[in-house]
Amino acid sequence: MELCKTISEIRQWLQDWDNIGFVPTMGYLHAGHLSLVKTARKETEHVVVSIYVNPSQFAPNEDLASYPRDLTRDLKLLQELNVDAIFFPDDREMYPRGFKTWIKVDKITQILCGKSRPTHFQGVTTIVSKLLNIIEPEKMFMGEKDFQQLVVLKQMAQDLNFKTEIVGCPIIREKDGLAMSSRNKFLSSQNRKNALCLYHSLQKAQEMFDEGIRDSHKIIRTMTKIIERSNCKIDYIEAVNPFTLEHQDHLQKGDRVLLAVFIDGTRLIDNREIR
Amino acid sequence: MELCKTISEIRQWLQDWDNIGFVPTMGYLHAGHLSLVKTARKETEHVVVSIYVNPSQFAPNEDLASYPRDLTRDLKLLQELNVDAIFFPDDREMYPRGFKTWIKVDKITQILCGKSRPTHFQGVTTIVSKLLNIIEPEKMFMGEKDFQQLVVLKQMAQDLNFKTEIVGCPIIREKDGLAMSSRNKFLSSQNRKNALCLYHSLQKAQEMFDEGIRDSHKIIRTMTKIIERSNCKIDYIEAVNPFTLEHQDHLQKGDRVLLAVFIDGTRLIDNREIR
Repeated sequence: MELCKTISEIRQWLQDWDNIGFVPTMGYLHAGHLSLVKTARKETEHVVVSIYVNPSQFAPNEDLASYPRDLTRDLKLLQELNVDAIFFPDDREMYPRGFKTWIKVDKITQILCGKSRPTHFQGVTTIVSKLLNIIEPEKMFMGEKDFQQLVVLKQMAQDLNFKTEIVGCPIIREKDGLAMSSRNKFLSSQNRKNALCLYHSLQKAQEMFDEGIRDSHKIIRTMTKIIERSNCKIDYIEAVNPFTLEHQDHLQKGDRVLLAVFIDGTRLIDNREIR
Repeated sequence: MELCKTISEIRQWLQDWDNIGFVPTMGYLHAGHLSLVKTARKETEHVVVSIYVNPSQFAPNEDLASYPRDLTRDLKLLQELNVDAIFFPDDREMYPRGFKTWIKVDKITQILCGKSRPTHFQGVTTIVSKLLNIIEPEKMFMGEKDFQQLVVLKQMAQDLNFKTEIVGCPIIREKDGLAMSSRNKFLSSQNRKNALCLYHSLQKAQEMFDEGIRDSHKIIRTMTKIIERSNCKIDYIEAVNPFTLEHQDHLQKGDRVLLAVFIDGTRLIDNREIR
């Protein structure tokens, strides 16, 4: 497994590799990340993982400084999965002095998570376009937990004619249903229990749909009650078209229900497809 | 010579080519463009030229509709130079419905030409990043006439880690010194004569520097007089550092003097290095 801290090092290795599968991460890996790596391992010949806590996708009031990190453990986990190369650059390598280029995707970055995190997605699109240019993968694998991120990056890749195919992979959950997230470690044991309300409210949405309810506002009202009685603060709950992220009054199969919730200062997101 | 109207066609050809030299143009080719093609021919194995009048770099009040076009003549000229492939897409191919991604370079796009054309450079950076992803050239060749454009694109390519080297090539001039430009065709014969004031004022700047004058404001005042007595309207005259485009009070060798001038509605630009 090659460990590369610089762009020139990783490019050196990659120049002889074809058919690369790429998994971008911010480290502190959990079973969700590892499932992406396993999918890449199956679908592509060489697997490259990046570990980089990208400062430009955090706002000044957000948790950049406290974002969990454990490189040693991450490297061990990735070695066990036969990853070919790890790219873990530092900030000077990715944002050298005088850096001034940003990729902005209109509309779909200003809604949902973009409302409370207005500069978040330009940080994501910019770092991912850099990584795509450095790694030049055949496929990039991302979890559906960050569903809006997935839609935004697919839009960017299509608009800017990146050759890489962006592959969305299913959300991986704890046994009780909580979506895997590096930020779960911030939860106290009581908050860990309360956090189940995200999953339960999404389950409820599907149940209501199964009962024939199509009015998304009615479904969102019920979800709201479930979240609020768990002492969580709602950022948003929305029902959207999975391609355009446009609000849907009338739910259809294939639409997506998404939510973001603050639990004692920790912001968690989750979503599910309505089937 | 391959003629490709679609991204999939040009990609088909390019997949077996290595070491590509790329010359992006808006067509209506002149000796300036052709010199870029000749340089590409010398420095790289395969030469690809794009012809595309990019609407997103024109503001609504600008000359998109009247921008000169002559594809038949362009193709003939390029064939004579043994170009390997021409990419001439239409707007639907480059900006399909729902397009929403823009590349923005801070600071250096808001000065000089960016002051009177505030959305121009985001159109340029976006289309060029698309073309770089489509063509994947080893080198891209651009004229120094659009000097700010060259600096902006070098910044973008560096920031986003494009592999392509951006190569700036000397300005090609008519015998009397007027910089070649597709927009020169808009000039009446009187205005064609007046347009020489751009070149003459740049020559004067060098002469003053040769005489030991370093105060850029003094030089710019003299240039201003030369332009104004030719009945031209100055957009800007500036003396800048060639890498940062920052204003220089005190001129040094290697600095760049740039200007933009309106001649009866036609906007011309020119510049020169102080040697």
